[in-house]
Amino acid sequence: MDFVDRVTDEGSADFVPIPERIATFDNDGNLWAEQPVYFQLFFAVDRVKAMAADHSEWATEEPFASVLAGDLQGVLANGEKALVELIMATHTGLSSEEFAHTVKIWTENARHPETGRLYTEMVYQPMLELLDYLRANDFKTFIVSGGGIEFMRPWTEAVYGIPPEQVVGSSVKTEYALVDGEPAILRLPEINFIDDKAGKPVGINQHIGRRPIFASGNSDGDFQMLEYTTAGRGARFGLLLHHTDAEREWAYDRDSHIGRLDRGLDEADERGWVVIDMAEDWNTIWPELDD
Amino acid sequence: MDFVDRVTDEGSADFVPIPERIATFDNDGNLWAEQPVYFQLFFAVDRVKAMAADHSEWATEEPFASVLAGDLQGVLANGEKALVELIMATHTGLSSEEFAHTVKIWTENARHPETGRLYTEMVYQPMLELLDYLRANDFKTFIVSGGGIEFMRPWTEAVYGIPPEQVVGSSVKTEYALVDGEPAILRLPEINFIDDKAGKPVGINQHIGRRPIFASGNSDGDFQMLEYTTAGRGARFGLLLHHTDAEREWAYDRDSHIGRLDRGLDEADERGWVVIDMAEDWNTIWPELDD
Repeated sequence: MDFVDRVTDEGSADFVPIPERIATFDNDGNLWAEQPVYFQLFFAVDRVKAMAADHSEWATEEPFASVLAGDLQGVLANGEKALVELIMATHTGLSSEEFAHTVKIWTENARHPETGRLYTEMVYQPMLELLDYLRANDFKTFIVSGGGIEFMRPWTEAVYGIPPEQVVGSSVKTEYALVDGEPAILRLPEINFIDDKAGKPVGINQHIGRRPIFASGNSDGDFQMLEYTTAGRGARFGLLLHHTDAEREWAYDRDSHIGRLDRGLDEADERGWVVIDMAEDWNTIWPELDD
Repeated sequence: MDFVDRVTDEGSADFVPIPERIATFDNDGNLWAEQPVYFQLFFAVDRVKAMAADHSEWATEEPFASVLAGDLQGVLANGEKALVELIMATHTGLSSEEFAHTVKIWTENARHPETGRLYTEMVYQPMLELLDYLRANDFKTFIVSGGGIEFMRPWTEAVYGIPPEQVVGSSVKTEYALVDGEPAILRLPEINFIDDKAGKPVGINQHIGRRPIFASGNSDGDFQMLEYTTAGRGARFGLLLHHTDAEREWAYDRDSHIGRLDRGLDEADERGWVVIDMAEDWNTIWPELDD
Protein backbone atom coordinates (compact mmCIF):
# COMPACT_ATOMS: atom_id res chain seq x y z
CA MET A 1 0.00 0.00 0.00
CA ASP A 2 2.95 2.28 0.60
CA PHE A 3 4.13 1.60 -2.94
CA VAL A 4 0.67 2.25 -4.40
CA ASP A 5 0.41 5.50 -2.41
CA ARG A 6 3.74 6.68 -3.76
CA VAL A 7 2.97 5.99 -7.43
CA THR A 8 -0.60 7.35 -7.31
CA ASP A 9 -0.02 10.54 -5.31
CA GLU A 10 0.45 13.39 -7.78
CA GLY A 11 2.57 15.23 -5.24
CA SER A 12 4.97 12.30 -4.87
CA ALA A 13 8.38 12.20 -6.57
CA ASP A 14 7.47 8.62 -7.55
CA PHE A 15 4.16 9.53 -9.17
CA VAL A 16 3.37 7.38 -12.23
CA PRO A 17 0.79 8.53 -14.82
CA ILE A 18 -2.14 6.14 -15.17
CA PRO A 19 -1.25 4.70 -18.60
CA GLU A 20 2.12 3.59 -17.24
CA ARG A 21 0.67 1.74 -14.23
CA ILE A 22 1.24 -1.70 -15.69
CA ALA A 23 1.13 -4.72 -13.37
CA THR A 24 1.96 -8.24 -14.56
CA PHE A 25 1.04 -11.49 -12.84
CA ASP A 26 2.23 -15.00 -13.43
CA ASN A 27 -0.70 -17.44 -13.41
CA ASP A 28 0.29 -21.01 -12.42
CA GLY A 29 1.10 -21.14 -8.72
CA ASN A 30 0.53 -17.41 -8.47
CA LEU A 31 -3.10 -16.64 -9.31
CA TRP A 32 -4.27 -20.25 -9.24
CA ALA A 33 -2.62 -23.41 -7.88
CA GLU A 34 -0.29 -25.66 -9.85
CA GLN A 35 -0.11 -28.91 -7.85
CA PRO A 36 0.22 -31.84 -8.16
CA VAL A 37 0.80 -30.83 -11.81
CA TYR A 38 -0.01 -27.77 -13.93
CA PHE A 39 -3.77 -27.66 -14.44
CA GLN A 40 -3.27 -27.39 -18.18
CA LEU A 41 -1.80 -30.90 -18.02
CA PHE A 42 -5.01 -32.15 -16.39
CA PHE A 43 -6.86 -30.55 -19.29
CA ALA A 44 -4.58 -32.33 -21.79
CA VAL A 45 -5.16 -35.62 -20.00
CA ASP A 46 -8.93 -35.17 -20.13
CA ARG A 47 -8.64 -34.32 -23.82
CA VAL A 48 -6.64 -37.51 -24.47
CA LYS A 49 -9.35 -39.54 -22.80
CA ALA A 50 -12.08 -37.79 -24.77
CA MET A 51 -10.21 -38.23 -28.06
CA ALA A 52 -8.97 -41.80 -27.46
CA ALA A 53 -11.89 -43.47 -29.24
CA ASP A 54 -10.63 -41.94 -32.50
CA HIS A 55 -7.00 -42.87 -31.78
CA SER A 56 -6.70 -46.59 -31.17
CA GLU A 57 -2.92 -46.29 -31.72
CA TRP A 58 -2.66 -44.36 -28.43
CA ALA A 59 -3.24 -47.60 -26.46
CA THR A 60 0.39 -48.55 -27.10
CA GLU A 61 1.99 -45.22 -28.00
CA GLU A 62 3.71 -43.01 -25.40
CA PRO A 63 2.98 -40.62 -23.82
CA PHE A 64 -0.66 -41.46 -24.57
CA ALA A 65 -0.56 -45.00 -23.17
CA SER A 66 0.62 -43.70 -19.79
CA VAL A 67 -2.06 -41.02 -19.81
CA LEU A 68 -4.78 -43.54 -20.57
CA ALA A 69 -3.43 -45.83 -17.83
CA GLY A 70 -3.75 -42.90 -15.40
CA ASP A 71 0.02 -42.80 -14.88
CA LEU A 72 0.78 -39.06 -14.85
CA GLN A 73 4.18 -39.60 -13.23
CA GLY A 74 5.01 -41.87 -16.17
CA VAL A 75 4.22 -39.00 -18.53
CA LEU A 76 6.35 -36.56 -16.57
CA ALA A 77 9.20 -39.10 -16.50
CA ASN A 78 9.34 -38.88 -20.29
CA GLY A 79 10.39 -35.24 -20.00
CA GLU A 80 9.62 -32.19 -22.06
CA LYS A 81 9.34 -34.01 -25.38
CA ALA A 82 6.42 -36.07 -24.05
CA LEU A 83 4.68 -32.94 -22.77
CA VAL A 84 5.06 -31.15 -26.09
CA GLU A 85 3.66 -34.21 -27.90
CA LEU A 86 0.73 -34.28 -25.52
CA ILE A 87 0.05 -30.58 -25.99
CA MET A 88 0.30 -30.78 -29.77
CA ALA A 89 -2.06 -33.77 -29.97
CA THR A 90 -4.66 -32.21 -27.71
CA HIS A 91 -4.34 -28.45 -28.34
CA THR A 92 -3.96 -28.20 -32.13
CA GLY A 93 -5.71 -29.33 -35.30
CA LEU A 94 -8.80 -27.30 -34.54
CA SER A 95 -9.81 -23.65 -34.71
CA SER A 96 -9.18 -21.14 -31.94
CA GLU A 97 -12.92 -20.81 -31.49
CA GLU A 98 -13.40 -24.58 -31.11
CA PHE A 99 -10.45 -24.76 -28.74
CA ALA A 100 -11.84 -21.93 -26.60
CA HIS A 101 -15.17 -23.74 -26.44
CA THR A 102 -13.46 -26.97 -25.33
CA VAL A 103 -11.56 -25.11 -22.61
CA LYS A 104 -14.72 -23.39 -21.43
CA ILE A 105 -16.66 -26.64 -21.11
CA TRP A 106 -13.71 -28.17 -19.23
CA THR A 107 -13.40 -25.30 -16.74
CA GLU A 108 -17.13 -25.56 -16.04
CA ASN A 109 -16.99 -29.29 -15.33
CA ALA A 110 -13.59 -30.76 -14.52
CA ARG A 111 -12.62 -30.96 -10.86
CA HIS A 112 -9.30 -31.06 -9.08
CA PRO A 113 -8.45 -34.63 -7.98
CA GLU A 114 -7.58 -33.63 -4.40
CA THR A 115 -9.90 -30.76 -3.50
CA GLY A 116 -12.89 -31.61 -5.67
CA ARG A 117 -13.13 -27.94 -6.62
CA LEU A 118 -13.47 -26.65 -10.15
CA TYR A 119 -9.99 -25.58 -11.24
CA THR A 120 -11.17 -21.98 -11.53
CA GLU A 121 -12.17 -22.19 -7.86
CA MET A 122 -8.56 -22.92 -6.96
CA VAL A 123 -7.54 -19.31 -7.36
CA TYR A 124 -6.03 -17.44 -4.44
CA GLN A 125 -8.44 -15.12 -2.65
CA PRO A 126 -5.68 -12.69 -1.53
CA MET A 127 -4.49 -12.39 -5.13
CA LEU A 128 -8.01 -11.62 -6.35
CA GLU A 129 -8.07 -8.83 -3.76
CA LEU A 130 -4.66 -7.59 -4.89
CA LEU A 131 -5.83 -7.46 -8.52
CA ASP A 132 -8.91 -5.50 -7.44
CA TYR A 133 -6.85 -3.17 -5.28
CA LEU A 134 -4.42 -2.35 -8.05
CA ARG A 135 -7.21 -1.79 -10.56
CA ALA A 136 -9.00 0.47 -8.07
CA ASN A 137 -5.80 2.51 -8.21
CA ASP A 138 -5.91 2.66 -12.00
CA PHE A 139 -3.38 -0.06 -12.66
CA LYS A 140 -3.90 -2.14 -15.78
CA THR A 141 -3.46 -5.79 -14.80
CA PHE A 142 -1.96 -8.37 -17.16
CA ILE A 143 -1.30 -12.09 -16.93
CA VAL A 144 2.16 -13.13 -18.15
CA SER A 145 2.27 -16.90 -17.91
CA GLY A 146 4.12 -19.89 -19.30
CA GLY A 147 0.67 -21.44 -19.77
CA GLY A 148 -1.09 -21.41 -23.11
CA ILE A 149 -2.46 -17.99 -24.05
CA GLU A 150 -5.55 -19.54 -25.61
CA PHE A 151 -5.95 -21.92 -22.69
CA MET A 152 -6.30 -18.96 -20.31
CA ARG A 153 -8.28 -16.44 -22.30
CA PRO A 154 -11.65 -18.24 -22.24
CA TRP A 155 -11.98 -17.79 -18.45
CA THR A 156 -9.60 -15.07 -17.19
CA GLU A 157 -12.13 -12.28 -17.66
CA ALA A 158 -14.80 -13.98 -15.54
CA VAL A 159 -12.38 -15.30 -12.91
CA TYR A 160 -9.79 -12.50 -12.59
CA GLY A 161 -11.37 -9.56 -14.38
CA ILE A 162 -8.54 -9.72 -16.91
CA PRO A 163 -9.75 -9.49 -20.53
CA PRO A 164 -8.23 -11.62 -23.33
CA GLU A 165 -6.17 -8.73 -24.71
CA GLN A 166 -4.37 -8.49 -21.34
CA VAL A 167 -3.29 -12.12 -21.30
CA VAL A 168 0.23 -12.99 -22.44
CA GLY A 169 1.25 -16.65 -22.65
CA SER A 170 2.84 -19.42 -24.65
CA SER A 171 1.37 -20.11 -28.05
CA VAL A 172 1.32 -22.40 -31.06
CA LYS A 173 1.49 -21.08 -34.59
CA THR A 174 -1.84 -20.29 -36.19
CA GLU A 175 -3.07 -19.53 -39.67
CA TYR A 176 -6.07 -17.76 -41.09
CA ALA A 177 -8.22 -19.81 -43.44
CA LEU A 178 -11.74 -20.11 -44.76
CA VAL A 179 -13.36 -23.33 -43.54
CA ASP A 180 -16.57 -24.08 -45.42
CA GLY A 181 -16.53 -20.42 -46.40
CA GLU A 182 -16.26 -19.21 -42.79
CA PRO A 183 -13.13 -17.37 -41.56
CA ALA A 184 -11.25 -19.29 -38.88
CA ILE A 185 -7.95 -19.17 -37.01
CA LEU A 186 -6.48 -22.67 -37.20
CA ARG A 187 -4.13 -23.95 -34.50
CA LEU A 188 -1.08 -25.65 -35.99
CA PRO A 189 1.12 -28.31 -34.33
CA GLU A 190 4.14 -26.05 -34.03
CA ILE A 191 5.37 -23.98 -31.09
CA ASN A 192 5.20 -20.24 -31.74
CA PHE A 193 6.44 -18.78 -28.47
CA ILE A 194 7.37 -19.99 -24.98
CA ASP A 195 6.50 -17.33 -22.44
CA ASP A 196 8.75 -18.46 -19.63
CA LYS A 197 12.00 -17.28 -17.98
CA ALA A 198 13.79 -14.89 -20.38
CA GLY A 199 10.75 -15.26 -22.65
CA LYS A 200 8.60 -13.29 -20.19
CA PRO A 201 10.23 -9.89 -20.76
CA VAL A 202 10.12 -10.67 -24.49
CA GLY A 203 6.39 -11.47 -24.26
CA ILE A 204 5.80 -8.33 -22.21
CA ASN A 205 7.58 -6.21 -24.78
CA GLN A 206 5.73 -7.86 -27.64
CA HIS A 207 2.25 -7.58 -26.14
CA ILE A 208 2.39 -4.62 -23.78
CA GLY A 209 5.20 -2.55 -25.22
CA ARG A 210 6.22 -0.94 -21.99
CA ARG A 211 7.95 -2.05 -18.85
CA PRO A 212 5.68 -2.95 -15.92
CA ILE A 213 6.14 -1.14 -12.62
CA PHE A 214 4.78 -4.09 -10.66
CA ALA A 215 5.39 -7.81 -11.23
CA SER A 216 4.18 -10.79 -9.26
CA GLY A 217 5.35 -14.39 -9.59
CA ASN A 218 6.16 -17.50 -7.60
CA SER A 219 8.93 -19.40 -9.36
CA ASP A 220 12.30 -18.97 -11.03
CA GLY A 221 10.35 -18.91 -14.28
CA ASP A 222 9.35 -15.41 -13.16
CA PHE A 223 12.86 -14.29 -12.24
CA GLN A 224 13.57 -12.34 -15.42
CA MET A 225 10.13 -10.71 -15.36
CA LEU A 226 10.78 -9.39 -11.86
CA GLU A 227 14.36 -8.44 -12.74
CA TYR A 228 13.21 -6.53 -15.84
CA THR A 229 10.38 -4.83 -13.94
CA THR A 230 12.27 -3.78 -10.86
CA ALA A 231 15.37 -2.56 -12.72
CA GLY A 232 13.35 0.25 -14.27
CA ARG A 233 13.64 3.84 -13.07
CA GLY A 234 11.42 5.11 -10.26
CA ALA A 235 9.34 3.13 -7.80
CA ARG A 236 9.03 -0.57 -8.66
CA PHE A 237 7.52 -3.56 -6.95
CA GLY A 238 8.61 -7.20 -7.19
CA LEU A 239 6.48 -9.80 -5.41
CA LEU A 240 7.22 -13.50 -4.91
CA LEU A 241 4.70 -15.97 -3.54
CA HIS A 242 6.41 -18.66 -1.47
CA HIS A 243 4.36 -21.84 -1.15
CA THR A 244 4.88 -22.75 2.51
CA ASP A 245 1.48 -24.09 3.49
CA ALA A 246 1.34 -27.90 3.24
CA GLU A 247 -1.83 -27.93 5.26
CA ARG A 248 -4.10 -25.55 3.36
CA GLU A 249 -2.32 -25.68 0.00
CA TRP A 250 1.10 -27.19 -0.85
CA ALA A 251 4.62 -26.52 0.39
CA TYR A 252 7.38 -26.57 -2.20
CA ASP A 253 10.26 -24.43 -3.43
CA ARG A 254 13.91 -25.21 -4.21
CA ASP A 255 13.55 -28.88 -5.18
CA SER A 256 10.16 -28.86 -6.86
CA HIS A 257 9.86 -29.89 -10.50
CA ILE A 258 6.83 -27.66 -10.76
CA GLY A 259 7.12 -24.04 -9.71
CA ARG A 260 10.73 -24.38 -8.57
CA LEU A 261 11.75 -21.31 -6.54
CA ASP A 262 15.46 -21.24 -5.74
CA ARG A 263 17.36 -18.28 -7.15
CA GLY A 264 14.41 -16.04 -6.35
CA LEU A 265 14.60 -16.94 -2.66
CA ASP A 266 18.36 -16.38 -2.64
CA GLU A 267 18.22 -12.95 -4.24
CA ALA A 268 14.86 -11.50 -3.14
CA ASP A 269 16.34 -9.59 -0.20
CA GLU A 270 19.18 -7.88 -2.04
CA ARG A 271 16.82 -7.04 -4.91
CA GLY A 272 14.18 -5.61 -2.59
CA TRP A 273 11.51 -8.07 -3.69
CA VAL A 274 8.74 -8.83 -1.21
CA VAL A 275 8.26 -12.52 -0.41
CA ILE A 276 4.83 -13.72 0.71
CA ASP A 277 5.00 -16.60 3.18
CA MET A 278 1.69 -18.23 2.34
CA ALA A 279 1.30 -20.06 5.67
CA GLU A 280 2.19 -16.99 7.74
CA ASP A 281 0.78 -14.13 5.70
CA TRP A 282 -2.51 -15.36 4.28
CA ASN A 283 -5.62 -15.71 6.43
CA THR A 284 -7.51 -17.24 3.55
CA ILE A 285 -6.28 -19.26 0.60
CA TRP A 286 -9.35 -20.10 -1.46
CA PRO A 287 -12.44 -18.04 -2.24
CA GLU A 288 -15.60 -19.00 -0.41
CA LEU A 289 -17.95 -20.95 -2.62
CA ASP A 290 -21.65 -20.16 -3.00
CA ASP A 291 -23.69 -22.54 -0.87
CA MET B 1 -23.76 6.23 -36.24
CA ASP B 2 -26.62 3.83 -36.94
CA PHE B 3 -24.25 0.92 -36.32
CA VAL B 4 -22.95 2.46 -33.09
CA ASP B 5 -26.50 3.10 -31.90
CA ARG B 6 -27.44 -0.52 -32.52
CA VAL B 7 -24.50 -2.04 -30.67
CA THR B 8 -24.63 0.37 -27.71
CA ASP B 9 -28.40 0.43 -27.07
CA GLU B 10 -29.17 -2.15 -24.38
CA GLY B 11 -32.63 -2.59 -25.78
CA SER B 12 -31.31 -3.45 -29.24
CA ALA B 13 -31.11 -7.02 -30.55
CA ASP B 14 -27.59 -6.10 -31.72
CA PHE B 15 -26.39 -4.84 -28.34
CA VAL B 16 -22.71 -5.65 -27.69
CA PRO B 17 -21.33 -5.59 -24.12
CA ILE B 18 -18.55 -3.05 -23.63
CA PRO B 19 -15.62 -5.52 -23.38
CA GLU B 20 -16.51 -6.92 -26.81
CA ARG B 21 -16.58 -3.54 -28.54
CA ILE B 22 -13.26 -4.04 -30.30
CA ALA B 23 -12.37 -1.79 -33.25
CA THR B 24 -9.25 -2.32 -35.36
CA PHE B 25 -7.62 0.22 -37.66
CA ASP B 26 -4.94 -0.19 -40.26
CA ASN B 27 -2.37 2.60 -40.00
CA ASP B 28 -0.56 3.31 -43.31
CA GLY B 29 -2.93 5.04 -45.71
CA ASN B 30 -5.73 4.74 -43.18
CA LEU B 31 -4.82 6.74 -40.08
CA TRP B 32 -1.84 8.51 -41.64
CA ALA B 33 -0.75 8.87 -45.26
CA GLU B 34 1.52 6.45 -47.11
CA GLN B 35 2.69 8.33 -50.20
CA PRO B 36 4.96 8.59 -52.09
CA VAL B 37 6.29 5.67 -50.01
CA TYR B 38 5.49 4.22 -46.56
CA PHE B 39 6.72 6.68 -43.95
CA GLN B 40 8.67 3.92 -42.24
CA LEU B 41 10.80 3.76 -45.38
CA PHE B 42 11.60 7.47 -45.02
CA PHE B 43 12.66 6.68 -41.46
CA ALA B 44 14.90 3.84 -42.69
CA VAL B 45 16.44 6.16 -45.28
CA ASP B 46 17.18 8.78 -42.64
CA ARG B 47 18.71 6.07 -40.46
CA VAL B 48 20.97 4.93 -43.33
CA LYS B 49 22.20 8.49 -43.78
CA ALA B 50 22.80 8.87 -40.04
CA MET B 51 24.62 5.54 -39.82
CA ALA B 52 26.59 5.84 -43.08
CA ALA B 53 29.71 7.31 -41.46
CA ASP B 54 30.20 3.98 -39.66
CA HIS B 55 29.48 1.94 -42.80
CA SER B 56 31.83 2.97 -45.60
CA GLU B 57 30.92 -0.25 -47.44
CA TRP B 58 27.41 1.15 -48.04
CA ALA B 59 28.78 3.57 -50.65
CA THR B 60 28.92 0.70 -53.14
CA GLU B 61 26.54 -1.85 -51.62
CA GLU B 62 22.85 -2.06 -52.58
CA PRO B 63 20.30 -1.10 -51.43
CA PHE B 64 22.36 1.36 -49.36
CA ALA B 65 24.15 3.00 -52.31
CA SER B 66 20.79 3.90 -53.90
CA VAL B 67 19.52 5.26 -50.60
CA LEU B 68 22.61 7.42 -50.13
CA ALA B 69 22.28 8.66 -53.72
CA GLY B 70 18.70 9.71 -52.93
CA ASP B 71 17.29 7.19 -55.40
CA LEU B 72 14.29 5.74 -53.56
CA GLN B 73 12.81 4.33 -56.77
CA GLY B 74 16.06 2.41 -57.21
CA VAL B 75 15.56 0.88 -53.78
CA LEU B 76 11.98 -0.09 -54.54
CA ALA B 77 13.06 -1.56 -57.89
CA ASN B 78 15.16 -4.06 -55.95
CA GLY B 79 12.01 -5.56 -54.49
CA GLU B 80 11.16 -6.97 -51.12
CA LYS B 81 14.62 -8.39 -50.43
CA ALA B 82 16.14 -4.90 -50.59
CA LEU B 83 13.48 -3.54 -48.24
CA VAL B 84 14.06 -6.31 -45.72
CA GLU B 85 17.83 -5.67 -45.87
CA LEU B 86 17.22 -1.98 -45.31
CA ILE B 87 14.92 -2.64 -42.36
CA MET B 88 17.31 -5.12 -40.76
CA ALA B 89 20.29 -2.79 -41.09
CA THR B 90 18.43 0.20 -39.66
CA HIS B 91 15.92 -1.33 -37.22
CA THR B 92 17.94 -4.02 -35.42
CA GLY B 93 21.17 -4.43 -33.48
CA LEU B 94 20.01 -2.12 -30.72
CA SER B 95 17.66 -2.35 -27.75
CA SER B 96 13.94 -1.70 -27.96
CA GLU B 97 14.42 1.29 -25.70
CA GLU B 98 17.12 2.79 -27.93
CA PHE B 99 15.03 2.10 -31.01
CA ALA B 100 11.98 3.79 -29.46
CA HIS B 101 14.13 6.81 -28.63
CA THR B 102 15.41 6.99 -32.22
CA VAL B 103 11.87 6.81 -33.58
CA LYS B 104 10.69 9.49 -31.17
CA ILE B 105 13.44 11.92 -32.17
CA TRP B 106 12.67 11.25 -35.83
CA THR B 107 8.93 11.88 -35.47
CA GLU B 108 9.68 15.16 -33.71
CA ASN B 109 12.00 16.39 -36.45
CA ALA B 110 11.70 14.71 -39.84
CA ARG B 111 9.37 16.30 -42.36
CA HIS B 112 7.49 14.94 -45.34
CA PRO B 113 9.26 15.87 -48.63
CA GLU B 114 6.10 17.18 -50.30
CA THR B 115 4.03 18.79 -47.55
CA GLY B 116 6.79 19.87 -45.17
CA ARG B 117 4.67 18.59 -42.28
CA LEU B 118 5.94 16.34 -39.53
CA TYR B 119 4.89 12.81 -40.45
CA THR B 120 2.68 12.66 -37.36
CA GLU B 121 0.88 15.74 -38.70
CA MET B 122 -0.09 13.77 -41.79
CA VAL B 123 -2.81 11.89 -39.99
CA TYR B 124 -6.40 12.14 -41.19
CA GLN B 125 -8.58 14.49 -39.17
CA PRO B 126 -11.80 12.54 -39.90
CA MET B 127 -10.15 9.34 -38.66
CA LEU B 128 -9.06 11.04 -35.43
CA GLU B 129 -12.69 12.04 -34.95
CA LEU B 130 -13.84 8.48 -35.70
CA LEU B 131 -11.44 7.08 -33.11
CA ASP B 132 -12.75 9.57 -30.55
CA TYR B 133 -16.34 8.82 -31.43
CA LEU B 134 -15.92 5.08 -31.03
CA ARG B 135 -14.07 5.49 -27.73
CA ALA B 136 -16.79 7.83 -26.49
CA ASN B 137 -19.10 4.87 -27.11
CA ASP B 138 -16.87 2.55 -25.08
CA PHE B 139 -15.11 0.90 -27.97
CA LYS B 140 -11.50 -0.15 -27.40
CA THR B 141 -9.50 1.00 -30.41
CA PHE B 142 -6.52 -0.96 -31.77
CA ILE B 143 -4.06 -0.43 -34.58
CA VAL B 144 -3.47 -3.52 -36.72
CA SER B 145 -0.82 -2.55 -39.25
CA GLY B 146 1.77 -4.08 -41.54
CA GLY B 147 4.13 -1.44 -40.17
CA GLY B 148 6.62 -2.20 -37.42
CA ILE B 149 4.99 -2.57 -34.02
CA GLU B 150 7.92 -0.85 -32.31
CA PHE B 151 8.04 1.83 -34.99
CA MET B 152 4.47 2.85 -34.12
CA ARG B 153 4.31 2.49 -30.37
CA PRO B 154 6.52 5.47 -29.46
CA TRP B 155 3.97 7.95 -30.85
CA THR B 156 0.54 6.31 -31.24
CA GLU B 157 -0.60 7.26 -27.75
CA ALA B 158 0.11 10.97 -28.23
CA VAL B 159 -1.15 11.11 -31.81
CA TYR B 160 -4.13 8.72 -31.82
CA GLY B 161 -4.82 8.09 -28.14
CA ILE B 162 -3.92 4.42 -28.71
CA PRO B 163 -1.56 3.03 -26.04
CA PRO B 164 1.32 0.66 -26.90
CA GLU B 165 -0.55 -2.42 -25.69
CA GLN B 166 -3.26 -1.74 -28.30
CA VAL B 167 -0.85 -1.63 -31.23
CA VAL B 168 -0.43 -4.78 -33.34
CA GLY B 169 2.15 -4.80 -36.12
CA SER B 170 5.01 -6.55 -37.82
CA SER B 171 7.99 -7.40 -35.66
CA VAL B 172 11.54 -8.68 -35.56
CA LYS B 173 12.65 -11.32 -33.12
CA THR B 174 13.93 -10.02 -29.81
CA GLU B 175 15.80 -11.43 -26.87
CA TYR B 176 16.14 -10.49 -23.24
CA ALA B 177 19.68 -9.86 -22.03
CA LEU B 178 21.66 -7.98 -19.43
CA VAL B 179 23.75 -5.25 -21.05
CA ASP B 180 26.30 -3.83 -18.62
CA GLY B 181 24.15 -5.35 -15.89
CA GLU B 182 20.99 -3.57 -17.09
CA PRO B 183 18.04 -5.59 -18.46
CA ALA B 184 17.32 -4.90 -22.11
CA ILE B 185 15.22 -6.21 -24.98
CA LEU B 186 17.55 -6.61 -27.95
CA ARG B 187 16.25 -6.38 -31.50
CA LEU B 188 17.61 -9.19 -33.68
CA PRO B 189 18.01 -9.15 -37.48
CA GLU B 190 15.33 -11.76 -38.08
CA ILE B 191 11.66 -11.36 -39.01
CA ASN B 192 9.31 -12.52 -36.25
CA PHE B 193 5.89 -11.76 -37.73
CA ILE B 194 4.43 -10.00 -40.77
CA ASP B 195 1.13 -8.43 -39.85
CA ASP B 196 -0.35 -8.09 -43.33
CA LYS B 197 -3.09 -9.76 -45.39
CA ALA B 198 -3.89 -13.18 -43.80
CA GLY B 199 -1.43 -12.21 -41.06
CA LYS B 200 -3.83 -9.56 -39.74
CA PRO B 201 -6.45 -11.94 -38.35
CA VAL B 202 -3.57 -13.99 -36.91
CA GLY B 203 -2.11 -10.88 -35.25
CA ILE B 204 -5.55 -9.90 -33.96
CA ASN B 205 -6.04 -13.34 -32.46
CA GLN B 206 -2.56 -13.33 -30.94
CA HIS B 207 -2.77 -9.86 -29.39
CA ILE B 208 -6.45 -9.21 -28.82
CA GLY B 209 -7.87 -12.71 -28.54
CA ARG B 210 -11.32 -11.85 -29.75
CA ARG B 211 -12.87 -10.92 -33.03
CA PRO B 212 -13.39 -7.19 -33.67
CA ILE B 213 -16.86 -5.93 -34.46
CA PHE B 214 -15.48 -2.98 -36.43
CA ALA B 215 -12.53 -2.90 -38.82
CA SER B 216 -11.16 -0.07 -40.90
CA GLY B 217 -8.58 -0.29 -43.68
CA ASN B 218 -7.67 1.08 -47.09
CA SER B 219 -5.93 -1.62 -49.10
CA ASP B 220 -6.14 -5.28 -50.06
CA GLY B 221 -3.68 -5.87 -47.21
CA ASP B 222 -6.71 -5.25 -44.99
CA PHE B 223 -9.04 -7.57 -46.89
CA GLN B 224 -8.76 -10.54 -44.54
CA MET B 225 -9.09 -8.32 -41.46
CA LEU B 226 -12.38 -6.95 -42.78
CA GLU B 227 -13.50 -10.40 -43.93
CA TYR B 228 -12.75 -11.91 -40.50
CA THR B 229 -14.41 -9.02 -38.68
CA THR B 230 -17.59 -8.77 -40.70
CA ALA B 231 -18.20 -12.53 -40.92
CA GLY B 232 -18.82 -12.65 -37.16
CA ARG B 233 -22.31 -12.98 -35.71
CA GLY B 234 -24.39 -9.89 -34.97
CA ALA B 235 -23.84 -6.33 -36.14
CA ARG B 236 -20.47 -5.76 -37.81
CA PHE B 237 -18.87 -2.86 -39.60
CA GLY B 238 -16.29 -2.95 -42.40
CA LEU B 239 -14.85 0.36 -43.59
CA LEU B 240 -12.57 1.00 -46.58
CA LEU B 241 -10.90 4.33 -47.26
CA HIS B 242 -10.60 4.97 -50.99
CA HIS B 243 -7.87 7.47 -51.88
CA THR B 244 -9.56 9.57 -54.56
CA ASP B 245 -8.24 13.04 -53.82
CA ALA B 246 -5.21 13.88 -55.95
CA GLU B 247 -5.57 17.52 -55.04
CA ARG B 248 -5.58 17.48 -51.25
CA GLU B 249 -3.91 14.08 -50.76
CA TRP B 250 -3.18 11.35 -53.35
CA ALA B 251 -5.37 9.34 -55.70
CA TYR B 252 -4.50 5.67 -56.12
CA ASP B 253 -6.11 2.26 -55.96
CA ARG B 254 -6.01 -0.77 -58.27
CA ASP B 255 -2.59 -0.22 -59.85
CA SER B 256 -0.70 1.27 -56.94
CA HIS B 257 2.37 -0.52 -55.59
CA ILE B 258 1.66 1.04 -52.23
CA GLY B 259 -1.76 0.62 -50.70
CA ARG B 260 -3.16 -1.30 -53.65
CA LEU B 261 -6.95 -1.52 -53.38
CA ASP B 262 -8.48 -3.80 -56.00
CA ARG B 263 -10.35 -6.82 -54.62
CA GLY B 264 -11.73 -4.65 -51.83
CA LEU B 265 -13.35 -2.29 -54.34
CA ASP B 266 -14.79 -5.21 -56.29
CA GLU B 267 -16.34 -6.91 -53.28
CA ALA B 268 -17.20 -4.08 -50.88
CA ASP B 269 -20.80 -3.82 -52.06
CA GLU B 270 -21.71 -7.49 -51.81
CA ARG B 271 -19.98 -7.71 -48.44
CA GLY B 272 -21.75 -4.65 -47.09
CA TRP B 273 -18.54 -2.73 -46.45
CA VAL B 274 -18.74 1.06 -46.46
CA VAL B 275 -16.32 2.78 -48.84
CA ILE B 276 -15.19 6.33 -48.04
CA ASP B 277 -14.59 8.41 -51.16
CA MET B 278 -11.99 10.76 -49.74
CA ALA B 279 -12.53 13.56 -52.27
CA GLU B 280 -16.32 13.44 -51.95
CA ASP B 281 -16.85 12.55 -48.30
CA TRP B 282 -14.19 14.42 -46.36
CA ASN B 283 -14.40 18.15 -45.74
CA THR B 284 -11.01 18.13 -44.11
CA ILE B 285 -8.02 15.89 -44.65
CA TRP B 286 -5.33 17.11 -42.27
CA PRO B 287 -5.57 18.44 -38.74
CA GLU B 288 -5.10 22.15 -38.30
CA LEU B 289 -1.66 22.99 -37.02
CA ASP B 290 -0.95 25.33 -34.12
CA ASP B 291 0.85 28.17 -35.87
